[in-house]
Amino acid sequence: MGEFDLIKRYFTPGHYSEDVLLGVGDDAAVMAVPQESRLVAAVDTIVEGVHFPIGTSAANVAYRALAVNLSDMAAMGALPRWFTLSLCVPSAENEWLSEFGSALSDLATEYAVQLVGGDTVKGPLNISIQIMGVVDQAHWLTRSGAQQGDLIFVSGVLGEAAGGLQLILNPNIEAELSFARHLLHRFYRPIPRVELGRQLNNRLATAAMDISDGLLTDLRKLCAASQCGAEIDLELLPASPPLINVFGEAMAEQFALQGGDDYELLFTVPEERLPSLEQVIKMTGVPCTRIGRITRSGAVQCFRKNTPITIADAGFDHFAESN
Amino acid sequence: MGEFDLIKRYFTPGHYSEDVLLGVGDDAAVMAVPQESRLVAAVDTIVEGVHFPIGTSAANVAYRALAVNLSDMAAMGALPRWFTLSLCVPSAENEWLSEFGSALSDLATEYAVQLVGGDTVKGPLNISIQIMGVVDQAHWLTRSGAQQGDLIFVSGVLGEAAGGLQLILNPNIEAELSFARHLLHRFYRPIPRVELGRQLNNRLATAAMDISDGLLTDLRKLCAASQCGAEIDLELLPASPPLINVFGEAMAEQFALQGGDDYELLFTVPEERLPSLEQVIKMTGVPCTRIGRITRSGAVQCFRKNTPITIADAGFDHFAESN
Repeated sequence: MGEFDLIKRYFTPGHYSEDVLLGVGDDAAVMAVPQESRLVAAVDTIVEGVHFPIGTSAANVAYRALAVNLSDMAAMGALPRWFTLSLCVPSAENEWLSEFGSALSDLATEYAVQLVGGDTVKGPLNISIQIMGVVDQAHWLTRSGAQQGDLIFVSGVLGEAAGGLQLILNPNIEAELSFARHLLHRFYRPIPRVELGRQLNNRLATAAMDISDGLLTDLRKLCAASQCGAEIDLELLPASPPLINVFGEAMAEQFALQGGDDYELLFTVPEERLPSLEQVIKMTGVPCTRIGRITRSGAVQCFRKNTPITIADAGFDHFAESN
Repeated sequence: MGEFDLIKRYFTPGHYSEDVLLGVGDDAAVMAVPQESRLVAAVDTIVEGVHFPIGTSAANVAYRALAVNLSDMAAMGALPRWFTLSLCVPSAENEWLSEFGSALSDLATEYAVQLVGGDTVKGPLNISIQIMGVVDQAHWLTRSGAQQGDLIFVSGVLGEAAGGLQLILNPNIEAELSFARHLLHRFYRPIPRVELGRQLNNRLATAAMDISDGLLTDLRKLCAASQCGAEIDLELLPASPPLINVFGEAMAEQFALQGGDDYELLFTVPEERLPSLEQVIKMTGVPCTRIGRITRSGAVQCFRKNTPITIADAGFDHFAESN
């Protein structure tokens, strides 16, 4: 089966919305960006054995590959619209490709994004997706707008994905089945916070990013981009009962601070906009927790009961690690 | 060295043009698509040992990765503007990355395209580039517009890249140094025919695509998309003296028909527009040769001196081949 047929058979959407003028099957796709909008684009690649364990199901790989890209759109406050897929697989197995294509299609449908181009090549498993979205021409979320005094928030709960990964890598860890399932699901199926991001972009958040490498690592990036510092109150971190149950409080906190892969949003909001944020939390149904405050200095400092706590950085960084 | 630093150090352009509102370094980039334009996007991935031989220099890998994507824009008649890079490399070697980044930057500058996003991951060498361009809102080139009677043209000379690849794979083939150099250069440095494509899009070509898998394979795709057939006159194929000198006439013809990697444009033009095409050839300096004619039937038939010739298809197709 040829490359052309592969894309056509497993990945071509049944129909396109009006903004796709030419879809999969030509040398390139043609899309219409609304006049009052700007184009937003990002790329994220996941590799077997680096971003997901060897043996991960095709459906989970597909979900993750697209979800992390949708999360980048969320972090910009953008509406995801289109994506291209570069799929490098060791062999063209019908079952695997069919499961992959089906899961990809399900998530794409859920978020109303459309596959407009693809490339399948033979080689070690590697999935690269570039996502394109649109955002209002006047404003989008960046990492660089945080101001001294802004409150720091995170969506959802942190560390559960890292806990899930630990369970996958160490099958000997004892865990209640329902907790284990929850944590695994959080690793394999991070929820892109697209609607929250779009609401935060409505003159609410001063800075935002998604947490892929761990809270501390990513908060440092946000602070560097915004030329500011931050104080985190460890007591405010949203607790995960399943995570604490399986790993204990200390490790749950470590996962929350340094585990990546949660793809929750990290954002800053000026205190006077808290009422608007509360409305957004209600409307989107996404819990958001205040965990600290932006400071003037360039450092990120953690506190517990007003006592400074030093935490060694072990954030996930591909070339800094041995895996 | 971290992923973030890698992109920043080796791949961040010095400055952006006005249409890039937010470049590399945030969760996504933000670009302005001109109001009268449409967005054109494509992805092409190249893998070591599949698309280029193991041992290919970093500069040649970088050139090729971007050039094949620029060629997709050429095939649409689009103006390439931005691209994202997903770079999967076994290790972060300064020398390799520096050479790669420098060659990428040179070609990007030559074609005025800008890197707006990147992802570096650790793994087997795999370079995925998604390119984005703009095209007039009213018309773009596709594979599907060829009409019975249209003349079939190719730009440049075909088969030289395949000859170059043979020289790389079989170092025992005897060849004059100047010829060998020419053929190798044609394999490593295909010229994206962007300006020609843009001119062909000016109500000149009825269909177009770039030749990546070989003339016959790609012409069949064009015919399938246009629901037509084609006749090729083998005597009209543009001859390559270096290719004939090294491989002989028969093999040179085989390379021209079935060798991929040339990235020349294949396009169709109604006879009455020939004067306009001649002007475009003059203006762009890109030689274009008439090689046949679009027919009603669904087949691609080759002729030599009016005698039908049957040629077995050996077009390059990743999953159909053992490499």
